[in-house]
Amino acid sequence: MENFTFFNPTQIEFGTGKEQLIGQHLAGHGIKKVLLCYGSERIKREGLFDVASKSLAEKGIELVEFGGIVSNPVISKVREGIALARAQQVDAILSVGGGSVLDSVKAIAAGVRYDGDVWDLFTGKAPVESALPLFAILTLAATGSEMNPGAVVTNDETQEKFFISAAPLFPKVSIVNPALMQGVTRDYLVYSASDVIAHLIEAYFTATVHPKLQSRLVESLINTVIETTEALLANPADYDARAQFAWAATLALNGLTYSGTAGSSFPNHAIEHSLSALFNVPHGAGLSVVVPAWMKWYLDRNPAQFERFAKNVFGVETGEQGIAALQGWYDKIGTPTHLPQLDINEADLPAIVENVQKNVRIFGIADTYTPEVVTAILKSAL
Amino acid sequence: MENFTFFNPTQIEFGTGKEQLIGQHLAGHGIKKVLLCYGSERIKREGLFDVASKSLAEKGIELVEFGGIVSNPVISKVREGIALARAQQVDAILSVGGGSVLDSVKAIAAGVRYDGDVWDLFTGKAPVESALPLFAILTLAATGSEMNPGAVVTNDETQEKFFISAAPLFPKVSIVNPALMQGVTRDYLVYSASDVIAHLIEAYFTATVHPKLQSRLVESLINTVIETTEALLANPADYDARAQFAWAATLALNGLTYSGTAGSSFPNHAIEHSLSALFNVPHGAGLSVVVPAWMKWYLDRNPAQFERFAKNVFGVETGEQGIAALQGWYDKIGTPTHLPQLDINEADLPAIVENVQKNVRIFGIADTYTPEVVTAILKSAL
Repeated sequence: MENFTFFNPTQIEFGTGKEQLIGQHLAGHGIKKVLLCYGSERIKREGLFDVASKSLAEKGIELVEFGGIVSNPVISKVREGIALARAQQVDAILSVGGGSVLDSVKAIAAGVRYDGDVWDLFTGKAPVESALPLFAILTLAATGSEMNPGAVVTNDETQEKFFISAAPLFPKVSIVNPALMQGVTRDYLVYSASDVIAHLIEAYFTATVHPKLQSRLVESLINTVIETTEALLANPADYDARAQFAWAATLALNGLTYSGTAGSSFPNHAIEHSLSALFNVPHGAGLSVVVPAWMKWYLDRNPAQFERFAKNVFGVETGEQGIAALQGWYDKIGTPTHLPQLDINEADLPAIVENVQKNVRIFGIADTYTPEVVTAILKSAL
Repeated sequence: MENFTFFNPTQIEFGTGKEQLIGQHLAGHGIKKVLLCYGSERIKREGLFDVASKSLAEKGIELVEFGGIVSNPVISKVREGIALARAQQVDAILSVGGGSVLDSVKAIAAGVRYDGDVWDLFTGKAPVESALPLFAILTLAATGSEMNPGAVVTNDETQEKFFISAAPLFPKVSIVNPALMQGVTRDYLVYSASDVIAHLIEAYFTATVHPKLQSRLVESLINTVIETTEALLANPADYDARAQFAWAATLALNGLTYSGTAGSSFPNHAIEHSLSALFNVPHGAGLSVVVPAWMKWYLDRNPAQFERFAKNVFGVETGEQGIAALQGWYDKIGTPTHLPQLDINEADLPAIVENVQKNVRIFGIADTYTPEVVTAILKSAL
C-alpha cells in the first residue's frame, strides 16, 4: 500500500429533516451573515428555501440571496457571486442545490479571499490558500462535492472546464437528506449513477498499486449504486434506496476508496470535461459515453483488475464481458453510451481532442493521452 | 437507512517513515511542550523513541516522558499521568504505542481539563467537555482508537472496565506506519485480528436497520482481516499485508461501517470487558472466546444476516456453518475460543456475570443481557 494522508473534516448530517437545523450549524461556526446560493427557483416552489431561511432567521443570521446558477457552472457567474459576497460582506456561503451550485460556492468562497481574478486559481497561476467557510444542503447525489475539497467550473469565454482542490474548500457541514432528492428526474438519476461509477473506477483501474482492501470497497459501492439505481427507477419513492445511493455517492469521492492506491489518474474526467465544456452535455451523460470506450482501450494495460471487476460487479468471467456488461447496463437504464446520442459526431472530434489536450496537461497525463489516443478512444464511441 | 451524523476530523498519516514528521505535526498545532506517553522500554530499544524525540526537538518542542503504561490500562496510572501533565504544564499529549497507551492518553487529556477525579468521566458522573490536544504514533493495529474519540480504561480498585467517548478525544494527527508493527508477536497479531472482527460484527449483527451498503463494507473489511492475518502468519515481513490489516483496523471503528445503522449494541464488548477487568486477559483473546458463543445464542434473532455473513465471508451456506467457520478460523490462527484456554472455569462464572451487569447497564442493554442470558452464553464457551 502506498503512503497517504487521510484528512476529511466535513461534518455530514445525513437523513430526513436535517435541513431544518442549518441555522444551528452556521451559528455554531459563529456565522452572522450568509450568501445563500442556488440554481433554479425550484427550491422556492418546493419549500426548501423557506425551511432554510426560517432556520437561519431563528438564529439571527442575515441572508443574502444569489440564485440562477446553472449545470456545468460558469466562471462568469462565480465572479458575480464574489462581487456580491464582497459588497454584502457576508462571512460564509451556503449552497442549496446539487454539485453545480456547490462547486460554484467553493469557487466563490475561495475567490472572495483572493485579490486577483478567480480563474487564476483554476489555471494554477495562484494557489487556494484561504476561503470563506462554506456549508451545503444537497439536493442531488452525484458529484461527492459535499465531502471533498474539490470543485469543477467552466470558463465560458475560453471553453475550458478546469478544477480546484484545496483543504480550505472542505464544507464545514453538509446536509444530505435523501428525501430532498425524491424529485430528481429519471434522466438525472441515471446520469448521477454514471458519475458516481466513474469516480469509483478511475483509481480502481488506473492505479499502479491498488490493494485488495480498496478494490473491495469500490466494488461494494458500485454494487450498491447499480442495485439502488434499479430500485429507484422502479420506485422513485423508495427512501432507503435513495439513501444508500446518496451515501455511496458521498463515499465514492471523499478519499476513502483511493487512499493507499498509487499512480492513479482521472482520464475519463479529463476527456469528458471537454464534452461538457464544448457541448454543455450533462457530465454524467458524457461519462457513460467515455467510460466504456476508455475501458476497451485500457483493458490490456490492467487485465487482472478488469477480470476482478467483471467477476465481482457483474458476475461474468472476462474483462471484455465486464465492459460489455457495464455498457449494457448503461443502455438499460437509459444513459447514453455513444456520442451521437449527445448530438456529437465525427466532425466534432478534432475540436474535442484539441480541448482535451489542455485537460490532460492539468491532470498530468498528457504523455499517455496524446491526440492520437484520445481520437482513437472517442472514435470507438461514435 | 437511519439518520446519522458523520464527523471525523482526525488526520491520518499512513505509511513508512511518517513518524519522522511528528514534530512538524505538533508544531502545526502550536504545541510547545508535550507529555510523551508509552508502555514498555521497547520503543527505546528499537529506536522509535529517539526518532520521535529528535523530530520534536527539531521543532523546539519540549518533551516530558511518561512510560510504563500496561495492557488493559488502569485508572491509577492515568491519575499519575494527569498529575505529571499538570505539574509540567504540557499543552498536548503524545501516545507512542498501541491502543492501551492511546486510550490512557485520551483519559489523561480529558482528566487534565476536569476538576474532579477522572473516573467520574467514565461512570457518567460528569461529561467530557474538553481535553488537551492529543496525537499518536501507533505501534499496534487493533483497537481503532487512532481514528475515533473513544477510550476504555480499567479501574484497578473496583475492577470495572468502562469507556468514554466524546468529540474532544479525536486525535489531531495519528501516525500509522505498518513497518513499526512488524515486531508484533504472533499472539498479539491474532488477538488483534479478533478485536477488529469483533468491532465489525457488533453492529453488523445487532442493528435493527442494517443497509446492504454497510453490510458490504463490513464484509470487505472482515475478508481483508482474514486474508492479511494469514499472510502475516506465513510471513511477518509482508509489508503490504501489514498495511492492509492496519487500515482495515482503523476503518473498522472510525464511524464508517455503522453510520446509518440503527439499534446496534456492543454485547460482546460488554461481556469481554469483564473478562479482562477480572482476569487481565488480552482483550482480543477474550473476544475470540465470547464472540462465537454469543453468535450461537444470537443466531435466531437475525438469521438473514447470519446467512449473509456465512456466504459472503466464508462461502458456506447456513448461519450455523458461518459461526463454525469463524470459530474454526480462530482455532486455526491460534486465538482462544474457550474459557479454559484463558484459565477461566465454571466456578468463575458468577463473579464474571455480576461484573458484566455493570457493563450492560452502561451499554444500555441490561434488559436483554440478564444474568441468566450472560451465564448461558458463557457456559457455552466452557
